Amino acid sequence: MADIDSRIEAADRIGVTTGPIRGSRKVHVASPTGSGIRVAMREIDLDPHSGEPSVRVYDTSGPYTDPNARIDIAQGLPELRSAWIRARGDIEEIAQREVRPEDNGQLGPDRSGGVPAFPGVRKTVLRAKPGANVSQMHYARRGIITPEMEYVATRENLGRERLAEYVRDGQDWGAAIPDYVTPEFVREEVARGRAIIPSNINHPESEPMAIGRNFLVKINANIGNSAVASDVASEVDKMVWSIRWGADTVMDLSTGRNIHDTREWIIRNSPVPIGTVPIYQALEKVGGIAEELTWEIFRDTLIEQAEQGVDYFTIHAGVRLPYIPLTAKRVTGIVSRGGSIMAKWCLAHHKESFLYDRFDEITEIMKAYDIAYSLGDGLRPGSIADANDEAQFAELYTLGELTKRAWDQDVQVMIEGPGHVPMHKIKENMDKQLEACGEAPFYTLGPLTTDIAPGYDHITSGIGAAMIGWYGTAMLCYVTPKEHLGLPDRDDVKVGVVTYKLAAHAADLAKGHPAAKVRDDALSKARFEFRWRDQFNLSLDPDTAEQYHDQTLPAEGAKSAHFCSMCGPKFCSMKITQEVREFARLQNQPADAFVAAEDAEKGMAEMSKVYEETGRELYMGAGGREHD
Amino acid sequence: MADIDSRIEAADRIGVTTGPIRGSRKVHVASPTGSGIRVAMREIDLDPHSGEPSVRVYDTSGPYTDPNARIDIAQGLPELRSAWIRARGDIEEIAQREVRPEDNGQLGPDRSGGVPAFPGVRKTVLRAKPGANVSQMHYARRGIITPEMEYVATRENLGRERLAEYVRDGQDWGAAIPDYVTPEFVREEVARGRAIIPSNINHPESEPMAIGRNFLVKINANIGNSAVASDVASEVDKMVWSIRWGADTVMDLSTGRNIHDTREWIIRNSPVPIGTVPIYQALEKVGGIAEELTWEIFRDTLIEQAEQGVDYFTIHAGVRLPYIPLTAKRVTGIVSRGGSIMAKWCLAHHKESFLYDRFDEITEIMKAYDIAYSLGDGLRPGSIADANDEAQFAELYTLGELTKRAWDQDVQVMIEGPGHVPMHKIKENMDKQLEACGEAPFYTLGPLTTDIAPGYDHITSGIGAAMIGWYGTAMLCYVTPKEHLGLPDRDDVKVGVVTYKLAAHAADLAKGHPAAKVRDDALSKARFEFRWRDQFNLSLDPDTAEQYHDQTLPAEGAKSAHFCSMCGPKFCSMKITQEVREFARLQNQPADAFVAAEDAEKGMAEMSKVYEETGRELYMGAGGREHD
Repeated sequence: MADIDSRIEAADRIGVTTGPIRGSRKVHVASPTGSGIRVAMREIDLDPHSGEPSVRVYDTSGPYTDPNARIDIAQGLPELRSAWIRARGDIEEIAQREVRPEDNGQLGPDRSGGVPAFPGVRKTVLRAKPGANVSQMHYARRGIITPEMEYVATRENLGRERLAEYVRDGQDWGAAIPDYVTPEFVREEVARGRAIIPSNINHPESEPMAIGRNFLVKINANIGNSAVASDVASEVDKMVWSIRWGADTVMDLSTGRNIHDTREWIIRNSPVPIGTVPIYQALEKVGGIAEELTWEIFRDTLIEQAEQGVDYFTIHAGVRLPYIPLTAKRVTGIVSRGGSIMAKWCLAHHKESFLYDRFDEITEIMKAYDIAYSLGDGLRPGSIADANDEAQFAELYTLGELTKRAWDQDVQVMIEGPGHVPMHKIKENMDKQLEACGEAPFYTLGPLTTDIAPGYDHITSGIGAAMIGWYGTAMLCYVTPKEHLGLPDRDDVKVGVVTYKLAAHAADLAKGHPAAKVRDDALSKARFEFRWRDQFNLSLDPDTAEQYHDQTLPAEGAKSAHFCSMCGPKFCSMKITQEVREFARLQNQPADAFVAAEDAEKGMAEMSKVYEETGRELYMGAGGREHD
Repeated sequence: MADIDSRIEAADRIGVTTGPIRGSRKVHVASPTGSGIRVAMREIDLDPHSGEPSVRVYDTSGPYTDPNARIDIAQGLPELRSAWIRARGDIEEIAQREVRPEDNGQLGPDRSGGVPAFPGVRKTVLRAKPGANVSQMHYARRGIITPEMEYVATRENLGRERLAEYVRDGQDWGAAIPDYVTPEFVREEVARGRAIIPSNINHPESEPMAIGRNFLVKINANIGNSAVASDVASEVDKMVWSIRWGADTVMDLSTGRNIHDTREWIIRNSPVPIGTVPIYQALEKVGGIAEELTWEIFRDTLIEQAEQGVDYFTIHAGVRLPYIPLTAKRVTGIVSRGGSIMAKWCLAHHKESFLYDRFDEITEIMKAYDIAYSLGDGLRPGSIADANDEAQFAELYTLGELTKRAWDQDVQVMIEGPGHVPMHKIKENMDKQLEACGEAPFYTLGPLTTDIAPGYDHITSGIGAAMIGWYGTAMLCYVTPKEHLGLPDRDDVKVGVVTYKLAAHAADLAKGHPAAKVRDDALSKARFEFRWRDQFNLSLDPDTAEQYHDQTLPAEGAKSAHFCSMCGPKFCSMKITQEVREFARLQNQPADAFVAAEDAEKGMAEMSKVYEETGRELYMGAGGREHD
């Protein structure tokens, strides 16, 4: 066991990025109910001379961007939800399952990077009292609005109450997005299974967030070491880095050694829900031999992770024995790791998957901690060629059946989706999922819309992600430029997150989400008025925007220049338009006179008359202005 | 005038990238008509042990990737089409319009980087004989199949004749993509205006290509210096670099000084059609004062550029006086440079645009050289807020009217489109364009699907580009990461081209283009079989794919490893699937037995029976294989 000094040293070596995002400040917005709940958001103040209001944006970054927060990786984050969880009176405190050597893997080299076990490991953990159910869905179905639901309502609204004048403009494909999100709306959505709030009672550090078709589209970032690369320090850093740029949840997909300790460091320091694929660790415990997996080992792993605070589990319970042969003629067979492990187990034992057979027992465990299901699509297509095939949809309908079984125990569920799908087959995935799974939130991996661009699969999949998000997918699992090629590094994580954030936002816009367009309009207006700083600050990645601008025009004066390096001063269309507009103003034309035209010909006649009356020579006055 | 030595030196300083793309070899495929026409393509040979056929891909890179070609930038490319043009007997050779000082700009600093005028400038140029029309459309309408059309037919087919077994799978939204492209099909498409083959008779260096909804989706790369950055050498380099990665046409958008000389270097060395926006140079000739533009100066500029060999002109003839006020209440007004210049001219003179008034005279010029119109969308939206508004569509319907006027003189036309459009409004753009413009090819700039990600606008727009390409857009104008921030450098050009290439390919796939899926399937199969080299070589950017892979597993042995750094050896789903498949094979199960299952339940029953019959113990034999 490490002594205090070496612990501090270890924590110091886990460097994470802190401090505000450029041009933003952290604000805490009080819930209008007066409950005292305060929701962290990010406020972007614009140039005071512009007269434009500040723009409030959704903030996933947690205390790391709060200059007033004291960050101590060795201590973990403050426990925002602890009092809420305890106040409900349905939990008991129990001794934590003892960590066993196999929890951190038996095989392969130590890849901990010398980082010890998390220093502040809890001796006791929480669990529902016998017979109790602590899931948000259970409360919701009994009519209880939890603080988590209230937090979500305020969080989703952003400044939505200011947007009364915004006309809804979108095609939402049957979603039911409200003008304003009330805590009661959140409760209803959770109660009917259309949204989930992943919130393990042993992860009180998390800031509640909702995943559902009628909320803002969310994104997930995958991190985790593998048997050949990565260490604990860089995974904690990647977690903090990914939420800085907008990851709403993070999945720890570690395999190999130190799985338990890596996860402890991540959860204790994560303000966003953490998801895992428990079968990875279970497999590690049996030395990587799929056939040797047993229900007992898997169950023990679920409890181990439940006690640590994992908020959602990917469970590949839909990979049933009879579906496996349906993959035999595929170009890329089974590409899900969990799916292929279970397929191998099923074939080797010639038995139905224990994940399927024991599903209700798994659900029993989940409800005692409020862990949400992420029902894994183990038979998802791994190539354009295999999209929307029989194996994929057979599994999807089984996931629908399992959803209803989980809901019977009031356990929250989302459904994982593909993968690799050409554009013309994307909507069918969404339509079938809605039908099969009773509107449980869909959580897709891309999908990639072509297979020919490794190195650019954040883009091939960002296209599919934006489209399926528009059609109704609630959360988009990011893909980085390294997909299919290697493990993402820090830069890849950022590119993946920003790409998916813009895809999710494009989806919100197309759905007509009332809070989405505000930011686009504010940025466009800043662009048109040459407020370069505002343009950078309003963008998803202010650092890159400014850096790109400065590559050609680094001088500070260029930040207020009425042109940029693309066209130079003489050719700037925006500058010319402003002159045109100013010109019109000088003619004392009310703005309405310019837009009243019912159609082109009518407008032409009207305007010609105006021009005749005011005199052609008046137009000559503005001649020299473009030289300034 | 520079002497010979300094010319050679200058040319040496224009470094361009030559040599084959990694893993590819240049092939020349003979037209099946026996005419002797040979079309350059790229052949990707796969691992000989795989038994997989080589994959033939469309090649825009010209002689630069041909190891047998001698590249001399100071000489320009060989004149592939020269004999074809002359054989038609409808042209005359005339003295070239003398270059005037103002052709290279009167104002601002010299940004030539010391590069002199192109050494091999022609003394004489070609023009149609009086009364003749040398446009491809004119020939097509008279039933003539030109060598250009024949070249296009072979080029578009790639290996399509080998694809008889491919089942068409796509949603083409009413396009009419043939199973096999014949020269007659190309002629028909050009005759009815659904496709264009931009091919100025003074640009005989170009390799013919078609832009049309029933052909492969094309992409354009913009290059060009501006008044504040860039020089001639880097623009020539960018042109060669952009076609290496897949640009089908290149637009030279230079402004400022040295416009004429820059263009000469580019055209003489370009195997792809070159487009320009002549109003930029015309404006330069009047010192940047839009009001001082005249028809005479503009006309002179058209002839200057026509004689140099520009293949298509962006003409903003749809920016009519009555539409300008429709932009007054926009968030971002007029964002097209050409559009804003003409808007200013119209307002200042209180007159209809001379581009509109003189449209038929412009067409007269175009047909004497076979320059295609790219009818500019000067009133395109510059933000999400302004998408699909009255100004935009008023102009679009005028472009439709002008299309018919150009077609009356048998001049080829394509139509430029937006810009910035949220996903739910993209299809309306395509539908209206098809209706308004009689199926003339659509050529869009993205569109961007959100405005909040400067620095990533190749992606925000790549999403919109893929979608509108699927809906029917014939050519996608690329957007680089620097859009809205600065001039793209070499790296940005490559990222922009590859992003748009993948978007165009995703569109081809979704349309069900018969030649598209071959490459996806070949790459997916290579991926599944761990043929890493084949995977790299089949990708749009083999260099980046290999580099990313090698960041975690640089050893040469890893190129044949049956795993990668993402999952490591134990967790590789593809490896497990192969084992599952091998396993099935050992049971002597015909593959058909595995896929015959009509539905899941039926399949389960069937397979259970098979399992019972063959005996459970047989499945145990494969136990140890995953350790290898």
